[in-house]
Amino acid sequence: MKDLKNIVVEQLKERGVNFSKLADVLYDLQIKYNPNIDHEYCLEMIYAVLDKREVQFAILTGINLDKLAEKNMLDEPLNKIVNEDFSLYGIDEILALSIVNVYGSIGLTNFGYLDKAKTGVIKEIDIAGKDAKVCNTFLDDIAGAIIAAAASRMAHSYYDNNK
Amino acid sequence: MKDLKNIVVEQLKERGVNFSKLADVLYDLQIKYNPNIDHEYCLEMIYAVLDKREVQFAILTGINLDKLAEKNMLDEPLNKIVNEDFSLYGIDEILALSIVNVYGSIGLTNFGYLDKAKTGVIKEIDIAGKDAKVCNTFLDDIAGAIIAAAASRMAHSYYDNNK
Amino acid sequence: MKDLKNIVVEQLKERGVNFSKLADVLYDLQIKYNPNIDHEYCLEMIYAVLDKREVQFAILTGINLDKLAEKNMLDEPLNKIVNEDFSLYGIDEILALSIVNVYGSIGLTNFGYLDKAKTGVIKEIDIAGKDAKVCNTFLDDIAGAIIAAAASRMAHSYYDNNK
Amino acid sequence: MKDLKNIVVEQLKERGVNFSKLADVLYDLQIKYNPNIDHEYCLEMIYAVLDKREVQFAILTGINLDKLAEKNMLDEPLNKIVNEDFSLYGIDEILALSIVNVYGSIGLTNFGYLDKAKTGVIKEIDIAGKDAKVCNTFLDDIAGAIIAAAASRMAHSYYDNNK
Repeated sequence: MKDLKNIVVEQLKERGVNFSKLADVLYDLQIKYNPNIDHEYCLEMIYAVLDKREVQFAILTGINLDKLAEKNMLDEPLNKIVNEDFSLYGIDEILALSIVNVYGSIGLTNFGYLDKAKTGVIKEIDIAGKDAKVCNTFLDDIAGAIIAAAASRMAHSYYDNNK
Repeated sequence: MKDLKNIVVEQLKERGVNFSKLADVLYDLQIKYNPNIDHEYCLEMIYAVLDKREVQFAILTGINLDKLAEKNMLDEPLNKIVNEDFSLYGIDEILALSIVNVYGSIGLTNFGYLDKAKTGVIKEIDIAGKDAKVCNTFLDDIAGAIIAAAASRMAHSYYDNNK
Repeated sequence: MKDLKNIVVEQLKERGVNFSKLADVLYDLQIKYNPNIDHEYCLEMIYAVLDKREVQFAILTGINLDKLAEKNMLDEPLNKIVNEDFSLYGIDEILALSIVNVYGSIGLTNFGYLDKAKTGVIKEIDIAGKDAKVCNTFLDDIAGAIIAAAASRMAHSYYDNNK
Repeated sequence: MKDLKNIVVEQLKERGVNFSKLADVLYDLQIKYNPNIDHEYCLEMIYAVLDKREVQFAILTGINLDKLAEKNMLDEPLNKIVNEDFSLYGIDEILALSIVNVYGSIGLTNFGYLDKAKTGVIKEIDIAGKDAKVCNTFLDDIAGAIIAAAASRMAHSYYDNNK
């Protein structure tokens, strides 16, 4: 599992995901609920989400689909659908949901919010994907889902330590 | 089914849900994607979501749980959890997800966004629920899910008519 | 949380759920994949599933709906729908899914299988619910979901210890 | 949409899915609930499930992942995981769930049952996938999900016509 986590971290970084920026978005989402958090703790929570096998598999699969779409190696019409981030595709949301679900349904709303509001690094990943050579269709949902799952984990942990 | 739909509409209205205001939020969400929509069409889409049996059952169940919590008729500690809209409860999101899912996963992000941003009538329902005598724990998620499902239905329909 | 777990265990027992029999079904499901398991380990896994807050809330909510339906305290037509275990209701499956999801999607198939095949104690709970005075509409799905989640937890744990 | 449906049907057939055999499994699942169904009606229901865009996208994505795994064109370790149908992967169940969900949560149990019991053509697809040159990791779940969704659609339709 340690190995698989390392591979996932490496692949996310290769695809341009900046973990420190993920932690920034998490911090902005959660500081109003928990005034004691800092950047370091947020970063720790982001990495902790990647411990779960289900999360690792969803990320590996989504990133691979993005990469294959970039290289035109998916069958048509799927390649075009993924490459253009067709709004009705929906499978990117499905994969992201499987990441969020592992930490309970309260992550759902943070995921939806991030995907729609596209704050911080989510916006950057989305914009990078507009380049004709880059496909981030799955990656922006994955990034949002990791943050949302970390927020959920943090909320549960905060409650457990303060009741 | 017609009957069940009528019952659902009636119960939503009794609980203070203003359908015209649901349509307003839907309009604001979708006008940037589809400049031809108007209030009447949005209202029609909101009602159309309530045709689905799965949606009807989720709404009836959620509203009933809110009403029972108001009357202290749930067993403790559940009554307190629902009545206070405990943030880690999550079952309200689960029920709402079953409404959204019927129209595909793209409704997911709109639901999450509405639940977090609490625009328009969602905010009103949420605030009304802060009154000690009122429990809208399920209702605000239900309202958001109806709008999100309608947005999803509208997006699919727009595409079908414009390709 | 310890307290909430105790409450959940107590409520399940009050509703007639025999934990030893849950462990029996789990054993029968998993013995072919992992020949080293015994009844005690299965029982331990069943109890471990109940540690998760999301699982606890789903169980408390489902059991409460069953009890209210028995006492005719839900609004009609919901009371009749729940009391008769109307096959198209679906909210019992939704709640159960939220239990299963916490341990990843592989629990999904075991849940579906148990709900359909109704082996062992699942059948007993289902039959008990046919009595006019008893409503086990949510309980049989909850019991199946607990076993399925435990099977999923066991499978992940087995892999981690044997790779 | 018509075109996309045709493409999906064609791809399923190319991968060895026999629609008549899907209808056989559906018939066996549903005949006890609805004695008036016949093979032709079951076949019609199977095809009707493929009308939904969400279903089409899930199928296209899953089949493509199977094909890429066969050709060793996924990145490692994902290629090995998909090719060997690693039991803890779970993303195949996630995609299948998105097919089932479109027709409501009652399809869930049929899907789980079929995936576990592997009756009829599901078993054939699974066995075909054991060949070193063939990967049906997603395909057997897709086939089960199509049948389960059709069963769900049939149950809703039966109720509507007989109340």
